[in-house]
Amino acid sequence: MQMAVSLAGQAKGFTSPNPCVGAVVVSKGEIVGRGFHRAAGLPHAEVEAIDDAGDKARGATIYVTLEPCNHFGKTPPCTHKILKAKIKKVVIGCADPNPFVEGRGIGFLKDNGIKVVSGILEKETTRLIEDFIWYIQNDKKPFVILKSASTLDGRIATSTGDSKWITNEKSRAHVHMIRNEVDAILLGSGTLHADDPSLTARIHGRQTKDPIRVVLDTGLSIKEDAKVLNQKSTAMTIIVTGPDVSFQKKTAIEKKGARVIEVSLKNLRLDLNELMIKLGQMSVLSLLIEGGGTVAGSALRAGIVNKVLFFMAPKFLGSSDGIPVFSGKGPELIKDAFELNRMNITRFDNDFLVEGYLK
Amino acid sequence: MQMAVSLAGQAKGFTSPNPCVGAVVVSKGEIVGRGFHRAAGLPHAEVEAIDDAGDKARGATIYVTLEPCNHFGKTPPCTHKILKAKIKKVVIGCADPNPFVEGRGIGFLKDNGIKVVSGILEKETTRLIEDFIWYIQNDKKPFVILKSASTLDGRIATSTGDSKWITNEKSRAHVHMIRNEVDAILLGSGTLHADDPSLTARIHGRQTKDPIRVVLDTGLSIKEDAKVLNQKSTAMTIIVTGPDVSFQKKTAIEKKGARVIEVSLKNLRLDLNELMIKLGQMSVLSLLIEGGGTVAGSALRAGIVNKVLFFMAPKFLGSSDGIPVFSGKGPELIKDAFELNRMNITRFDNDFLVEGYLK
Repeated sequence: MQMAVSLAGQAKGFTSPNPCVGAVVVSKGEIVGRGFHRAAGLPHAEVEAIDDAGDKARGATIYVTLEPCNHFGKTPPCTHKILKAKIKKVVIGCADPNPFVEGRGIGFLKDNGIKVVSGILEKETTRLIEDFIWYIQNDKKPFVILKSASTLDGRIATSTGDSKWITNEKSRAHVHMIRNEVDAILLGSGTLHADDPSLTARIHGRQTKDPIRVVLDTGLSIKEDAKVLNQKSTAMTIIVTGPDVSFQKKTAIEKKGARVIEVSLKNLRLDLNELMIKLGQMSVLSLLIEGGGTVAGSALRAGIVNKVLFFMAPKFLGSSDGIPVFSGKGPELIKDAFELNRMNITRFDNDFLVEGYLK
Repeated sequence: MQMAVSLAGQAKGFTSPNPCVGAVVVSKGEIVGRGFHRAAGLPHAEVEAIDDAGDKARGATIYVTLEPCNHFGKTPPCTHKILKAKIKKVVIGCADPNPFVEGRGIGFLKDNGIKVVSGILEKETTRLIEDFIWYIQNDKKPFVILKSASTLDGRIATSTGDSKWITNEKSRAHVHMIRNEVDAILLGSGTLHADDPSLTARIHGRQTKDPIRVVLDTGLSIKEDAKVLNQKSTAMTIIVTGPDVSFQKKTAIEKKGARVIEVSLKNLRLDLNELMIKLGQMSVLSLLIEGGGTVAGSALRAGIVNKVLFFMAPKFLGSSDGIPVFSGKGPELIKDAFELNRMNITRFDNDFLVEGYLK
């Protein structure tokens, strides 16, 4: 199952609106087939693994990270494939989170005399598709991850705006990994103007997929020579504006290949909840918010954040004049602070990442 | 040696201006004597351990965390005691850091035919007396530890000043342990007015020693009913003022048992370097700075901080209006930020402590 999890991980970020899934076929104590779902429309993991196993699938056990599907979609149901291949036993990571499925895949297999064990490495297999689970159970709204890179005293830049580099190369490489695994990245026009980032996923020696870039730009102030509008990328750039922006500018931006979408204002700011619905409709299952402080603060207070990734470097400004991780007004009492569940700390040499889920 | 280290640790904070030391006597594979230096003026660890071993010390090995002394002080030299007890072998953690000693203890032992091994668990035994080492090698200035308890976004209180409690009980219990191990605690009058803390060391089920409380109070604004002036404690309270404070108020404070000392001003703030010299003269080897942000920032910029302890809770305010860990003006460039060496992370349930030494 551990191998199935890592096979699935290879396609994380490539399969939306499907979840990433991995499968391994084992016969007589030997691995005879491996597979993972590569992208929507392509074969499911079980099919890949069974085809890989060929005749050896007969009487074998298949390990699959997610309950096999039992319905006709873009591809025929995997349960039928398993039955046809004469697989004897199916070991499942986590059950299908789709409320419409309700264990029908497992039911079909059992009804047909196949032995089924479920809940193996359930934590890992669930975490693998946490974005998909959230999306499917919450009106197709994206799973939102908020990322920051700060000093130990909570600053993302000095008073002059200098932020290169707070975190080390290993941390930054990990951010590129995450970008490769999400469907879209969100940032504010402030960060865009300050850093002019490219926001692509660059991983040494590996095929990558850029995430969709979503820029919050209420007044459509983006410069036409901004990197996100002028680079080669496998993904598009979306500029989110409020109502009543210049039609001319909008047309100019769209000519450059970007898409401009409009959302309503709420307290003079772009309505992020409305944006989430729109992005969800575009099959964005997972969204990474990459700063700055204004967007981070607004996203938190809009209640759209599911998970945070706080990268921290072993340094501090020792002052109150650096740029803080979050802007805006906070709670008056500590008991009303945002709290993390299932917190985890990972070290990247002397940097570390605090990861957790919002309560 | 591990046992000697933990014996020594029992008296950490009780032995100034001496270092804490532990010793274990082993004969024929069996522990026959244990000892540690309990307080200045009382027997050294080696003497305690050898006396504990009695006749069994003859031909035995003694493990001692620090090179045995070879000079007559308040007690006779331990090297003589070892020789007299007919100890055959001495295993030493770290060499005496006193520049005047220069391995004379080890030399004496070797000259007298005793086998000596040095540098065993050197890292741990050195760390145990890091404050003493600093003090003795730096003109008797205290080893300064800066502690904060903050949210993940670097806030020690909300905008209204609420800070109870950011960190959990385990973290706070650990702070009491540290208070028990240092000679003095420093805080600013701002924190004193806001929190009216007692700053004693309270550890469940264990004898504790309160640290000396040092309050920075330039204008002598402390209220006469402040807890630090009116509580039972094993240690005194020192109020540090600038020049020209009210003689009457000073007398009133001193009548309550506190000591009022004066230091010069530097850029309108108390000169912390001058204060360090004065505290060092009072045998303060280790000083814990316990906030608030103004004192923390000033201490950093005065260059007196050796080590930091950043306790962090799995929460964040998500705003820019909370009270930051540090006040004051910081560097303009990230490359000029304060950096930590030998960083270590310890978890206290979901809180964690980032510990490190200033470069």
